[in-house]
Amino acid sequence: VTYLLPLFTRIDHVGIAVRNLDDAIGWYETTYGLTVTSRETNETQGVHEAMLVVAAPAGDDPGGSYVQLLEPLHEDSPVGKFLARNGPGVHHIGYGVVDVAEALAKIGETGIRLIDERPRHGSMGASIAFLHPKDTGGVLTELVQAAPPT
Amino acid sequence: VTYLLPLFTRIDHVGIAVRNLDDAIGWYETTYGLTVTSRETNETQGVHEAMLVVAAPAGDDPGGSYVQLLEPLHEDSPVGKFLARNGPGVHHIGYGVVDVAEALAKIGETGIRLIDERPRHGSMGASIAFLHPKDTGGVLTELVQAAPPT
Repeated sequence: VTYLLPLFTRIDHVGIAVRNLDDAIGWYETTYGLTVTSRETNETQGVHEAMLVVAAPAGDDPGGSYVQLLEPLHEDSPVGKFLARNGPGVHHIGYGVVDVAEALAKIGETGIRLIDERPRHGSMGASIAFLHPKDTGGVLTELVQAAPPT
Repeated sequence: VTYLLPLFTRIDHVGIAVRNLDDAIGWYETTYGLTVTSRETNETQGVHEAMLVVAAPAGDDPGGSYVQLLEPLHEDSPVGKFLARNGPGVHHIGYGVVDVAEALAKIGETGIRLIDERPRHGSMGASIAFLHPKDTGGVLTELVQAAPPT
């Protein structure tokens, strides 16, 4: 198997934990002029979330770059626990990859623990997987294969 | 004055605090296949740093997207204190802007405290400025105007 290197094609998003999604969206709109392209509730992740566009998809890459704002659905969710421990701030980083299954296989071979052994559904139709922050220098890291253009 | 909106053109970099720069570079090279494009020592910031390419500059934007690894020069530096308090992990986010002086003026009008009232020299010849994390939802935020192409 020949892997694509580098594995990352872009910084897909910065995932930011917030206490109130509507307030945070308003703040990002007013302060930086960013606009929301998608809002979703992800019950599995336990979050209400919004994606704000920093850079639209360009060229061959179907993915763009976003600020992802995350409000927990309940205190026991991962983002709820993060907020209780750290307060609002950067929760994780999402990097764009061409093929998330291939990237997971490559990274798994290095011995890094995978939170997701197989890709699952992420924001805006993406296929995503998380790596364990204890094995990635303290950075909760998400791999993001953007949905193909429709 | 008419400001460019949105203010951000890209996610310029994720600034990551590490204990040992050489070890961290080796890990990012081996695990993700990223390569170093610049290494610098910034005495003012109190860091040894390396920029690893995630996405090269494209189109009209002279800036790309990078992982920025930061090793403190001494324990009393901002990154040294961050490591002592939090351990390794995401230290700040840098967003690309077309004109950092204009972006600072616009953001300053909203009442957000500016760590840098005026742009100063950043990595790879960029003009940069930091915003105060207490006023930005806990995200230490850097504005980055990339150096013009040479």
